[in-house]
Amino acid sequence: MTMADTASPTATAARPPAIGWRLPPFYCPIEAPVHPRADQLEQRAIAWLDSTGIFRDDVDRAWSIATHSTDFSCRIIPHGRDEPLLLFIEWNHWAFALDDFWHDTGSADIATARIVDLNARISRCLEAPGSAMLGTTPFERALEDLAARTRAMVGPVHLRRIAEGLRDWLFGAAWQVSNIERGVMPTLSDYVALRPSINGTRFSLAWSQAATGIELSDEELSAAPVQALVDAAGFVVSCDNDLFSYAKEDDQETTDQNIVNVVAHHHGGTPEQALTEALAVRDRVMTLFLDLREQVARDAGGELRRYLEALGHYISGCIHWMNAAPRYASPRNRYRLPVPGATYGITWRDTPSDPGTGPLPIPAAAWWWDQLETAQRPRSRRASDLHQELRVPSPRAGGAGTAERSAPGG
Amino acid sequence: MTMADTASPTATAARPPAIGWRLPPFYCPIEAPVHPRADQLEQRAIAWLDSTGIFRDDVDRAWSIATHSTDFSCRIIPHGRDEPLLLFIEWNHWAFALDDFWHDTGSADIATARIVDLNARISRCLEAPGSAMLGTTPFERALEDLAARTRAMVGPVHLRRIAEGLRDWLFGAAWQVSNIERGVMPTLSDYVALRPSINGTRFSLAWSQAATGIELSDEELSAAPVQALVDAAGFVVSCDNDLFSYAKEDDQETTDQNIVNVVAHHHGGTPEQALTEALAVRDRVMTLFLDLREQVARDAGGELRRYLEALGHYISGCIHWMNAAPRYASPRNRYRLPVPGATYGITWRDTPSDPGTGPLPIPAAAWWWDQLETAQRPRSRRASDLHQELRVPSPRAGGAGTAERSAPGG
Repeated sequence: MTMADTASPTATAARPPAIGWRLPPFYCPIEAPVHPRADQLEQRAIAWLDSTGIFRDDVDRAWSIATHSTDFSCRIIPHGRDEPLLLFIEWNHWAFALDDFWHDTGSADIATARIVDLNARISRCLEAPGSAMLGTTPFERALEDLAARTRAMVGPVHLRRIAEGLRDWLFGAAWQVSNIERGVMPTLSDYVALRPSINGTRFSLAWSQAATGIELSDEELSAAPVQALVDAAGFVVSCDNDLFSYAKEDDQETTDQNIVNVVAHHHGGTPEQALTEALAVRDRVMTLFLDLREQVARDAGGELRRYLEALGHYISGCIHWMNAAPRYASPRNRYRLPVPGATYGITWRDTPSDPGTGPLPIPAAAWWWDQLETAQRPRSRRASDLHQELRVPSPRAGGAGTAERSAPGG
Repeated sequence: MTMADTASPTATAARPPAIGWRLPPFYCPIEAPVHPRADQLEQRAIAWLDSTGIFRDDVDRAWSIATHSTDFSCRIIPHGRDEPLLLFIEWNHWAFALDDFWHDTGSADIATARIVDLNARISRCLEAPGSAMLGTTPFERALEDLAARTRAMVGPVHLRRIAEGLRDWLFGAAWQVSNIERGVMPTLSDYVALRPSINGTRFSLAWSQAATGIELSDEELSAAPVQALVDAAGFVVSCDNDLFSYAKEDDQETTDQNIVNVVAHHHGGTPEQALTEALAVRDRVMTLFLDLREQVARDAGGELRRYLEALGHYISGCIHWMNAAPRYASPRNRYRLPVPGATYGITWRDTPSDPGTGPLPIPAAAWWWDQLETAQRPRSRRASDLHQELRVPSPRAGGAGTAERSAPGG
């Protein structure tokens, strides 16, 4: 099936998730280009995967291909050079396998101690050439291969940013595992603080710099407004990932730690109510991202401008990718094999579901808004800043404040 | 007692550790200056400590002062500006408390999951202003204060390096805890790979840059030879720390993970034999550090030269500091209160206990030697590279290959 044939996987007989198959329309007024040689790159990536011997069988292989790692990579890095982009695609296939078998299984038996050890070995595999801290399984040898080629291909500055991004991702992943082991559903604020790390935001964005050849100075990258943009972008992508993977993870042994379940757990209500509240948070961060990006762009040099563009592609690219990736649209807990052409058939909206422009009442996020110059805050397209308290949303006229759940397919 | 009065704490009645009170002479041909206003800074740091209310009683207070955090900081950053240096001193008091109560207790009941959560909160406390992921105990409020002052005092590039260094330290500390929980004594190579992180090497060195005002470009800092120097320096400091803290940790519930115990566990032999072998490893890394530093200095600009000097102070300063810190010389497992003036009364040697200049047969360390230009390797002061295999050291004439355990005091 294709997007033209059907709007969503609800056409199939698969059990619907608690938030339904039809996701609320996405607010993302950002262009979404894709790399022109994605098809060729995908063939090369699959050839590499086959050469590693990491698949137990054809079913494993099909689900790895169903991650659409090439589409993911070619959308968040649409202007990348072929060779580093290919390497990033292969890293992503590997990382999805790591997630599925280790980090994000939702198993109640998971031991943080074991994951922390594994993560340390992964991190040092890239940073300490020849350290041989991993074993000799195909999965481990594949990482050694990726690490060696990465060191050979990218310059030292990009390599160190990739390595720091990798560590940040693993740091976040270990925290998620520790929550599962301790039986803790994080608060919304704690979740906001760590979720961009869990999502590997800095790892992906370091690759975006390396593969596109963006040469940011440390001063540009380290500036607080740019760091806030990185976190905000990572948070929006994470929320979107939480929606697209809600079905995929709804039968885990422990309740999945996603934005909907976090809100539902701490604020109460049905999954659908929590979804509406989660979307309001996500959309208001998107508004902040757009405003702050515009502000930073005003005084930015050429390289920083390219990076600001890349941050946008990170957000828009991920939505387009997940919408049509069988990993999400025909999830493994419902399908023995990925369904070719499966798609969520999402729709779009032109305005945020929450019109507010002020800081969210979430301690871990508030500093993002502190980066805005005050004069910049009011924007004509938003009415006012009504959404002061997440728990009890203010009533609004019309449908602007609620997700349009029945918008026509796009 | 002072160094003039007695050579070592063996003069006291305290039970000697398995490696004895008299440590083998140290090979460290690096100058060891100290900040001229150390005394004033110590008074200010103690005033801050008292203002935080983090001490349960005067005994806790005495042991915090006995860390000699000011001496540590003022020796590794001898040319630092007063205000950031003071802040680093206070961070160190806080970090020692964290180590002693959480990271490095050696308790068999330790839960990695709990430490990973704590570490995530510590890391984000610095990176996400206002995230309030910590509680309101004096210990937690003290960190909020340190984090807020750090953000206000250092520029964005130094801040990000400090934050990355903090994360690397916490990443390493979690790994150590995971080993304890899993009952694993790491291999020598795994230990080499992670020990600089456990020691907070990159955190301390980021502070060294920030407090001295060393403005390294990302290109200079990221270059593989410089990264190898950082790891090698961190490893030497860690080995030295392992020797000075051997007594302090020899009655933990689980066997302490230090270089002597690592070697003894995997290679067999008595603690004294393991000590000799550990010293050979440590000294050969010191030789590598000196050679590689000389090589990098030849083409270095002014800022990088200052950093190379700082790396040296990191090594030499730590030895001088630990030698005379009651935390180590009158350890808490043997003394109710720290002994004023306690010292190990160490001695020095002019040549490494292992004369070899080639790579150690330790996978995680070998890449450090790869950074040497080949022509640089042979050095007149060393005879040959006999020490190819750690487990069965080649016989050598004279005492050059073994630690001079009875060298006269210095």
